[in-house]
Amino acid sequence: MTKDLPNTPLLDRVAGPADLRQMPDSDLTALAGELRAELISAVSQTGGHLGSSLGVVELSVALHAVFNTPMDKLIWDVGHQCYPHKILTGRRERIRTLRQKDGLSGFTKRAESAHDPFGAAHSSTSISAALGFAVGRDMGQATGDAIAVIGDGAISAGMAYEALNNAGHEGRRLFVILNDNEMSIAPPVGAMSSYLSRMYANEPLAKMRSLAEGFESAMPAPMREGAKRARQLVSGITASGTLFEELGFDYAGPIDGHDMNQLLPVLRAARARATGPVLIHCCTVKGKGYQPAESSADKYHGVSKFDVETGTQAKAKPGAPSYTSVFGNALADEAARDPDIVAVTAAMPDGTGVSKMAERFPSRVFDVGIAEQHGVTFAAGMAASGLKPFCAIYSTFLQRGYDQVVHDVALQGLPVRFAIDRAGLVGADGATHAGAFDIGYLTSLPGFTVMAAADEAELVHMVATAAAHDVGPIAFRFPRGAGTGVERPGRGEVLPIGKGRMLREGADVAILSFGAHLSECLAAADMLEAEGIGVSVADARFAKPLDGDLVAALARDHRVLLTVEQGAEGGFGSVVMHELARRGAFDRGLAIRNVTLPDRFIEQASPAEMYADAGMTALDICETARNALSGGGQVVPLSLAK
Amino acid sequence: MTKDLPNTPLLDRVAGPADLRQMPDSDLTALAGELRAELISAVSQTGGHLGSSLGVVELSVALHAVFNTPMDKLIWDVGHQCYPHKILTGRRERIRTLRQKDGLSGFTKRAESAHDPFGAAHSSTSISAALGFAVGRDMGQATGDAIAVIGDGAISAGMAYEALNNAGHEGRRLFVILNDNEMSIAPPVGAMSSYLSRMYANEPLAKMRSLAEGFESAMPAPMREGAKRARQLVSGITASGTLFEELGFDYAGPIDGHDMNQLLPVLRAARARATGPVLIHCCTVKGKGYQPAESSADKYHGVSKFDVETGTQAKAKPGAPSYTSVFGNALADEAARDPDIVAVTAAMPDGTGVSKMAERFPSRVFDVGIAEQHGVTFAAGMAASGLKPFCAIYSTFLQRGYDQVVHDVALQGLPVRFAIDRAGLVGADGATHAGAFDIGYLTSLPGFTVMAAADEAELVHMVATAAAHDVGPIAFRFPRGAGTGVERPGRGEVLPIGKGRMLREGADVAILSFGAHLSECLAAADMLEAEGIGVSVADARFAKPLDGDLVAALARDHRVLLTVEQGAEGGFGSVVMHELARRGAFDRGLAIRNVTLPDRFIEQASPAEMYADAGMTALDICETARNALSGGGQVVPLSLAK
Repeated sequence: MTKDLPNTPLLDRVAGPADLRQMPDSDLTALAGELRAELISAVSQTGGHLGSSLGVVELSVALHAVFNTPMDKLIWDVGHQCYPHKILTGRRERIRTLRQKDGLSGFTKRAESAHDPFGAAHSSTSISAALGFAVGRDMGQATGDAIAVIGDGAISAGMAYEALNNAGHEGRRLFVILNDNEMSIAPPVGAMSSYLSRMYANEPLAKMRSLAEGFESAMPAPMREGAKRARQLVSGITASGTLFEELGFDYAGPIDGHDMNQLLPVLRAARARATGPVLIHCCTVKGKGYQPAESSADKYHGVSKFDVETGTQAKAKPGAPSYTSVFGNALADEAARDPDIVAVTAAMPDGTGVSKMAERFPSRVFDVGIAEQHGVTFAAGMAASGLKPFCAIYSTFLQRGYDQVVHDVALQGLPVRFAIDRAGLVGADGATHAGAFDIGYLTSLPGFTVMAAADEAELVHMVATAAAHDVGPIAFRFPRGAGTGVERPGRGEVLPIGKGRMLREGADVAILSFGAHLSECLAAADMLEAEGIGVSVADARFAKPLDGDLVAALARDHRVLLTVEQGAEGGFGSVVMHELARRGAFDRGLAIRNVTLPDRFIEQASPAEMYADAGMTALDICETARNALSGGGQVVPLSLAK
Repeated sequence: MTKDLPNTPLLDRVAGPADLRQMPDSDLTALAGELRAELISAVSQTGGHLGSSLGVVELSVALHAVFNTPMDKLIWDVGHQCYPHKILTGRRERIRTLRQKDGLSGFTKRAESAHDPFGAAHSSTSISAALGFAVGRDMGQATGDAIAVIGDGAISAGMAYEALNNAGHEGRRLFVILNDNEMSIAPPVGAMSSYLSRMYANEPLAKMRSLAEGFESAMPAPMREGAKRARQLVSGITASGTLFEELGFDYAGPIDGHDMNQLLPVLRAARARATGPVLIHCCTVKGKGYQPAESSADKYHGVSKFDVETGTQAKAKPGAPSYTSVFGNALADEAARDPDIVAVTAAMPDGTGVSKMAERFPSRVFDVGIAEQHGVTFAAGMAASGLKPFCAIYSTFLQRGYDQVVHDVALQGLPVRFAIDRAGLVGADGATHAGAFDIGYLTSLPGFTVMAAADEAELVHMVATAAAHDVGPIAFRFPRGAGTGVERPGRGEVLPIGKGRMLREGADVAILSFGAHLSECLAAADMLEAEGIGVSVADARFAKPLDGDLVAALARDHRVLLTVEQGAEGGFGSVVMHELARRGAFDRGLAIRNVTLPDRFIEQASPAEMYADAGMTALDICETARNALSGGGQVVPLSLAK
């Protein structure tokens, strides 16, 4: 393997999955090797989710070789393991644009290819979607079989359980591939498993499990123990065959998901004979076939650009610390001062930064798995017991626990602290991960306190404020990525609830910012001042309770009032306008304009490029202010006219 | 049993659960009988969730007799089975105010009693909350054991699965009582079960299951078969012992949940010996002990006032049909015309009215169980296959599927039709069931079309409009209860997307209504006209896309513009103000006021009383309009100053 493009004679002949179906089985293993080399080469240039894609190289080849895609609908759960699938389905030429502006998405995406019948990015949706396609097929729509590929983490979420439960009840022909990469198959088990797979291929699926059991007891004692242990390991995880069978699925496996001699016959047998729902349990290795990935702790789950020969990843330029790490450290510091502080994360201790608290207070940090619904109500229960829970969930994933936020937290007025990372636009993960809606869906809840951090020093204060706020729910949002580099306080101050702060004063235009777009507001103010326009800039800090007196004063003392937020319409600007309407502040005229995310989803790029696409740069803010001063309606930037 | 108050000498001695713990076991069975009589008597006067409360009479007595409530935290899932619990915990005197204005809540509620440590109303939250209390206890908070009581329906939801999964992993002492009322125990099994229960009481819990198995095989053959069948029945449901054990729980049961001689020893043994999570599987009969309930199809799940001797329920006065039934019939009619129409409900075919379509097209209506997350994405999958799904979920429960609405429907622009019943305030079910937030959380999503029906004729048009709208997601909301009685069209018309309608024109005040509060707007207009104030009234029909030209014209041609909606701030009024701000319509002055739900939760009463409490009567609207005309800020009705 070199830094040059890999030699891929078989892969070069694959324009689409139909070409795989013309190849002899013996070539498919070799093809998988070439596909892996191409994948490593591509991701070394773009960065991305390498580990999970490496784990499904053989599975991707086998599924496309056996099923009639795209008439058959292949649905990858989460979708970050879809790079081999993209290479095989006509997107090889663009694979080195992954996660770039105007490039391929890092996830499956309907708009991108007929081979992506159902897009993903959030976890655990694939079985529900596949069942929808299966019903469509049974009702005469032009669609073939439905196949969901789901990992052992994703299948543990409540939503996947609901889908399995319903699919088992429906009893329709449906394929679920469990991509289980927590367990590697030891060689003797692998050998037995290979033998079992060939047996499976010769018998109807319904008999598979009993056959397997018969086989085990017929083994010589030493091998029997190995076989039994393997089976116990499988049963030990939640996603066991027993469970699936109770839910109405035929279960086949475990098989070695890197062995074409197991994958092809089992998939073919399942396709030929299934009359109801079938679960095929494949064991795979995350990072498979690339030594630096296999030997790394996280199996190269998400990597930056790297050197193919050494595996060395490009380092980020040293700069300001990330908001996430500032939050993590501030939380750990508060936890050190108050033994009642606990933290909840839904399978993202590192992503949310609560791992920093876990290092110092491991028994006080709870990773509940991919289970936002439970996580929120669990936190509410802890709050009801007298503890002080911080629930650290990205804006986009908190949507998963929204009813619990409403029903268990807000309605009961319980003091759960929500640390909402990835607020606003997030970069390479694109529209599916944008934190666009939380301001609106939280400020509408009675009794909620909602803050946004303008910079990392503010974030430290807000962690302290949340820790001290024991009278009801409170949330603070902050963006992905590096902070502004401001000096951080050694210890956060408890902010006065519902009070904003004035940053500069001028006569003509008032800019009222909520959150991390403050820097663009200040830059816009500089530009406007240079033109002789006087600008006040205020940081609201709180969307709820809103600093109504500050808002009213800004409205009274300026010709134009701009609200600015990193979120969709229906959030901060709405809160401000409701307050002004209530006070009669519009009655005598007020040129108010709201700078928000536009009413469309913003595609992946760098966050700065995405905000430019959204019409939210400092220049855009200036233009909106000038236009309001001149009495025109709001300028809609060209980028929004798409 | 007579219409007079029942004779309850034992119950009269119970001021609180501590009194139960002084009684000999032999009295507790008799006490349960008295409690049942009192329950029937009370609910015959108030109406309410009788069947499920009748099913847990013995369980309520046993739990309070064994556990040290309220130091031990007893958490009833959903909470509609809590009436016996309320009678036992100091609320007997108020039990005949159930679900009435200023009366006891029909659910558990923290504000009501220390015996309600965690309120409920939405399903499947109890295990998460109980685990939170268990952590609190282990971290030194002043709380004892945590006990969740959850039904076999509620435990099948994804959220409960997430909680079991996490509780099993945590391994903390925790009690889950599975109240399984789908299965009645036949006498021989009951006898065996009773014997088993006594065995359980003498052995550590960890051995219970193996003991039970040994017992079965030691039985004479005829009884053995019965015992085996009972066990298979239990294993046949999702909530089997096997599953719970795989998740890390000790499992005891099934026991007869109406037999104190089983309940008391098993609960005492569990309490004495549990070191980790324990699940006790109780079989109960919904409606138990009241013949009219036991013999009715729905076991008196929810009843109006009734005659105790005959069981005859008071009939609602004949009047306009309910919005729900109008929707159900309109949907069935559309389904008759278009074979691609399908419907999804999450365990509420009757409540949502899709049962009317199911009567005519049973294979095209999908009840996915208590599984809103799956239901929404399943509908999205069907839409992607080419079908035309209607997803019928109450506003308050759609919160459970919000991420799926965002990520699977809106982001992919899939044409899922959301029929949102119970929008606005709902009456006796109170704040937990209010549909307050959907306008805001849906209008913020790009590409969504959001409608609200002003009356039942409009609802018929909106069903037709949604059926025809195959280019993206669309939602229509409508309230609980009877329509206005307007004539309904034989067939709905497809409405022009994004266009409102003018209903009357006047010179001074414009009232722009969104949804079913239109009748109050028209009444307010009449009152204002009588004072010589000219009033225009328009029905927006669409919050998104908004009829911007209509809004701009209303703003231009009137001194005052009122928006009116049955929802929280951040919804329709926000959409209108964003549009007006964008157009510069505030620049030269516009007295706009927004009539919305206030920023607090509204307690149970009749819907009309609740809207009065909310400050949203026709009189309130008039007062707001007058005040705006006179240049004052918005009147905050006295009721809001609480």
